[in-house]
Amino acid sequence: MNISRFSRGLQKEAMLELYHHGSSVCAAKVRIVLAEKGVEWTGHYLDILEGDQFEPAYLKLNPKAVVPTLVHDGKVITESTVICEYLDEVFPEPPLVPTEPFRRAKMRTWTKAVDEEVHRACGPMTFMASHRHTLMRLGPERLEEFLQGTPPDSVTSDWKTRKRDYVEQGFAAPDAARMVHLYDRYLAKMEAELASSPWLAGDAYSLADAGMTPYLARLDMLQMQTMWTKGRPKLSRWFERIQARPSYTEAVDRWIPDQLRNDLSMFGARSWPEVQRILACA
Amino acid sequence: MNISRFSRGLQKEAMLELYHHGSSVCAAKVRIVLAEKGVEWTGHYLDILEGDQFEPAYLKLNPKAVVPTLVHDGKVITESTVICEYLDEVFPEPPLVPTEPFRRAKMRTWTKAVDEEVHRACGPMTFMASHRHTLMRLGPERLEEFLQGTPPDSVTSDWKTRKRDYVEQGFAAPDAARMVHLYDRYLAKMEAELASSPWLAGDAYSLADAGMTPYLARLDMLQMQTMWTKGRPKLSRWFERIQARPSYTEAVDRWIPDQLRNDLSMFGARSWPEVQRILACA
Repeated sequence: MNISRFSRGLQKEAMLELYHHGSSVCAAKVRIVLAEKGVEWTGHYLDILEGDQFEPAYLKLNPKAVVPTLVHDGKVITESTVICEYLDEVFPEPPLVPTEPFRRAKMRTWTKAVDEEVHRACGPMTFMASHRHTLMRLGPERLEEFLQGTPPDSVTSDWKTRKRDYVEQGFAAPDAARMVHLYDRYLAKMEAELASSPWLAGDAYSLADAGMTPYLARLDMLQMQTMWTKGRPKLSRWFERIQARPSYTEAVDRWIPDQLRNDLSMFGARSWPEVQRILACA
Repeated sequence: MNISRFSRGLQKEAMLELYHHGSSVCAAKVRIVLAEKGVEWTGHYLDILEGDQFEPAYLKLNPKAVVPTLVHDGKVITESTVICEYLDEVFPEPPLVPTEPFRRAKMRTWTKAVDEEVHRACGPMTFMASHRHTLMRLGPERLEEFLQGTPPDSVTSDWKTRKRDYVEQGFAAPDAARMVHLYDRYLAKMEAELASSPWLAGDAYSLADAGMTPYLARLDMLQMQTMWTKGRPKLSRWFERIQARPSYTEAVDRWIPDQLRNDLSMFGARSWPEVQRILACA
């Protein structure tokens, strides 16, 4: 792992621990920022497809039962977008937040949209296209246990019901089309944004680009690249530049477990005709 | 309105315009920050209970058809939380963002929770307790028009269906209990947070406090103060301190139209037994 001078200095007095998993887009986002900053960290790997996130010890750190969680010198920080801004403040070089306030606002509009919209489409898309098949291998009893798994803080969400729909019905789930169009809509917004600047918040790579990366990577692993290679040239070039950065290999690609990579690729490719059919009915 | 030296200097070259409404919690949040900063601004008042936000000219500024929108020297910024961070950067005095990174992360955890959770409870609560009665005055045709009103960007949301449920069924709506408990849960979290510091992100008033203010103010207007006055002494004192700040009168209280204030108070008080019954079944 690439260690910057700054982080080597830091390691003498501080300790960065990341609770994460290869399948989590939010964890990938934080790993990307750590890699871009060249900061060393210690990982705790939770298998979220096996339900490790529901262990009581982890729930104490992260009541929502999601990854990632960052522990910096004993201080616990959850929520990947909050973690990324924190990392940019604690490790200022290279800066991943624009200096100009309006650009910052643009960056935060993107990172907020990732959390509130794109992310809501990504889970459904992945479950409908691939995880539902992966989960079948658990056998009926453990699958049911997985479907029942409810974080104590989930009063805010109807994810439990929807998760069952996605697993049991795939792209026939009630809001399948809404989720596919939502995902696609953000690719269209990226294409529009990239017409005026090479990166999402201006001339320099920022947390906005880091934030969207795992969501393009997910579609890439699901073999759904046509969503940008056909008719979205600016986004295509953006993703080529993203993939050429060392942070992509280090923080995204190398963490995907082989079995998961195979599943995403195989089941994703098989699902593409269904996604394509949905996209054709705008 | 209170104009600071800084803003007077600014007015020579810049122009701040805010599209807002007295009923919008998100608009109130931005007005609070403007008042705390002592910055002068020009308002464009949209009646969101009359559907002004669906006007094509406004949709160009704000495709989600929500208030507020800030226009600063021609630059359009939407999303109240993004606007507040922007205002803190452009008008740094007095600072409303903690300087210490971990405190900042704490502040952002709160402002993010406001957007992603508390806000989702506030609309339903207000509609179920009061707006449903206010809207009846529109008559059946204009009510239906209001219920049909869909922002073009609403592919992300099932608000349209839920809005109808809240208006037609009040606290008998399918997720009424979940919304009431969600709101209450955040009051409990505030009480817990305020055990260790006078303000939500530490020793100083910050965007976290500004962000939660309109949501307490809403419950206050709905005559549901018992949610904190009974058994939440730290939150009670926090809200007293909030109400004593000049920004509360200037940015929250004075903007509530009389009719709306009367409705919230009268219909809210009538709804309280139903809310209380839901709260009793935790």
